[in-house]
Amino acid sequence: MSETYIAGAGMVRFGKYPVDVTFEKLAVGAAREAMSDAGVSTNDIESVYVGHVFGGPVAGQRVAAQMGLGGLPVSNHENYCASGATAIREAWIAIKAGLYDIVLVIGAEKMTDRVSGGVMPDPTDLDAINGLVMAANHGMSARRYMSDHGATREQIASVAVKNHAHSVHNPFAQYQRPISLQEVVDARTIADPLGLLDCSPISDGAAAVVLCIAAGLAKLGRSSAPRIAGCALVSGKIVTADTNLNDEDVSRRAGEQAWNITGYGPEDIDLVEMHDCFTIAEIVRLEGLGVVPVGEGGRWAENGNTSIGGKLPVNASGGLLSRGHPVGATGVAQICELTWQLTDRAGQRQVDKANIGLAYCKGGTVSGTDGGSVTVLLVTR
Amino acid sequence: MSETYIAGAGMVRFGKYPVDVTFEKLAVGAAREAMSDAGVSTNDIESVYVGHVFGGPVAGQRVAAQMGLGGLPVSNHENYCASGATAIREAWIAIKAGLYDIVLVIGAEKMTDRVSGGVMPDPTDLDAINGLVMAANHGMSARRYMSDHGATREQIASVAVKNHAHSVHNPFAQYQRPISLQEVVDARTIADPLGLLDCSPISDGAAAVVLCIAAGLAKLGRSSAPRIAGCALVSGKIVTADTNLNDEDVSRRAGEQAWNITGYGPEDIDLVEMHDCFTIAEIVRLEGLGVVPVGEGGRWAENGNTSIGGKLPVNASGGLLSRGHPVGATGVAQICELTWQLTDRAGQRQVDKANIGLAYCKGGTVSGTDGGSVTVLLVTR
Repeated sequence: MSETYIAGAGMVRFGKYPVDVTFEKLAVGAAREAMSDAGVSTNDIESVYVGHVFGGPVAGQRVAAQMGLGGLPVSNHENYCASGATAIREAWIAIKAGLYDIVLVIGAEKMTDRVSGGVMPDPTDLDAINGLVMAANHGMSARRYMSDHGATREQIASVAVKNHAHSVHNPFAQYQRPISLQEVVDARTIADPLGLLDCSPISDGAAAVVLCIAAGLAKLGRSSAPRIAGCALVSGKIVTADTNLNDEDVSRRAGEQAWNITGYGPEDIDLVEMHDCFTIAEIVRLEGLGVVPVGEGGRWAENGNTSIGGKLPVNASGGLLSRGHPVGATGVAQICELTWQLTDRAGQRQVDKANIGLAYCKGGTVSGTDGGSVTVLLVTR
Repeated sequence: MSETYIAGAGMVRFGKYPVDVTFEKLAVGAAREAMSDAGVSTNDIESVYVGHVFGGPVAGQRVAAQMGLGGLPVSNHENYCASGATAIREAWIAIKAGLYDIVLVIGAEKMTDRVSGGVMPDPTDLDAINGLVMAANHGMSARRYMSDHGATREQIASVAVKNHAHSVHNPFAQYQRPISLQEVVDARTIADPLGLLDCSPISDGAAAVVLCIAAGLAKLGRSSAPRIAGCALVSGKIVTADTNLNDEDVSRRAGEQAWNITGYGPEDIDLVEMHDCFTIAEIVRLEGLGVVPVGEGGRWAENGNTSIGGKLPVNASGGLLSRGHPVGATGVAQICELTWQLTDRAGQRQVDKANIGLAYCKGGTVSGTDGGSVTVLLVTR
């Protein structure tokens, strides 16, 4: 089986773009950056994998056609907020299967054009339709976490403070200014105890990576590049009334699959890009994965353990909370960040001894009617 | 690399279903039929691949959760009308990569619930927005074909007559009554020269297959099953003003990729499931693939060469025109038909000496702004 290397990574800055900056423009912009970083031309690319949710039918083909990649195999992958990561995983599988030497993976989303902007519940999710939407779920999760573990509101808010502090140094982040704990706690309530700054924003943006086999690297005149050690994908199980909302069975199983594939374990991870769609989500997912002890996540955020320079830096990029969250782009942006970190190109947000990075995405609701979708990708130096 | 076998196939009848027969119900129904045909239980399935266009985010996860497959890796694949075939291709790649022994692939669509029902042009396709929609494109294609090759309106209409005659014997077909040449020619015009019966209908439906490696077959106590010899995927290139609308470069390239992967050639094919979204499309795509001589497709339909019992039976199932066209389900339904044909289970529509079957799908517009997406899958006895 061929190993998969990341030859190049590129992004367009996440944010809110006017209507003439289309889905296609964002995607093409990121793809050109990744190809330039890898030193590949359109003739080198053999296949295109595109992760998106709202781009519409054959969105990837429109992007490929616009950048002179028409003719290639192009496929579109959707697993809600894990769509970009799923596209990378499918490309990793195709490379393992020996189909391609060099492929392009793009994650992109234009959310501000949509009527609702945000992530809507699926129409069969009666809980969500009646008000138990994402924010409400995570509000309940936060209350339960505080009750179970004696965590404070301030500890949960610390996640937002930390991630905003990190992305001050990320030129691709939607937000690039520090925020104070007081600002997070005082922000208007969205779903008690969570306020506006505990929630990831509506974002537009795109990210791309060029993946290749060892022979592809050699062809590009490169002796090394970060390697995708393994990609895990699991879905959730139906949640019943007696399930603890913070049980995180789905995260635990995704982690186990990743450890099984790669031979690494939670203790080997040097840095994490975590799907912090809400502050509390970063905490409970880190614990579910087993990289932070259960009940300690709030304290770890507060005492700097998950800051750059801490025991386990989490979301050096700023995460979804501050880099932004164009849903289909997020999973690819996480891999861009790990690529830059593992090649010592992360500038002032560089993590020391960044040798093994983990990226986690979750798509779908946490209330359990669809079960959701979790990806865990491991990248090594 | 592991070979991929089709252990079981199942469908729900294509047609127009009331609102309470949801996307999920259709998909679960087809999946259960395929699993029953394969003799597998939910415990045997290791991953779920779902092709759909309009099911909404994490639609596959909803389906998996409802049938007790929550927890597994589930991924959603969209390549417009080639979505089902793309899902099969991705599963085939994962099996080649050694990830799974037994997987479930589902193609499903509920189209009648949608406001428009049909397949809309993408918003960046200015030609389509101004009226050059699918039907108009194929109307122009028909006129050009008649002019270039001296084909008659009746020859083109013969495709609809043939495919409706075939699906009289297909219990899963949306239409199961024969139609006359006169009915096709006299039907109200949709895009001159094409009438209503030259166009595939709006349909709801689902189809599923269980794919496995040789060891998986053995585990099921089976000594043989049809094998997926190879799956090709290409996208279109930008069409320019001097391109002949019937050039079918994309079909030719998809065919070449399939011949390269499998070692078979056009002369080896015993039967074809062809993406006949319009009568003329069956003709020009068969010619593009090289399985029918250029300019002969109309005559072949008229003289019975592409009928069951003819030189190269095409759409023994009834095709999109008469089996129906729930877009995400179509590519999987084609493989169900080939499975039944290659195991001598097609009843009164059985094709003699059905040893090597070809399934072709095309997603996206033919006018060229997205380039579209073509799949060619080869299945052998």
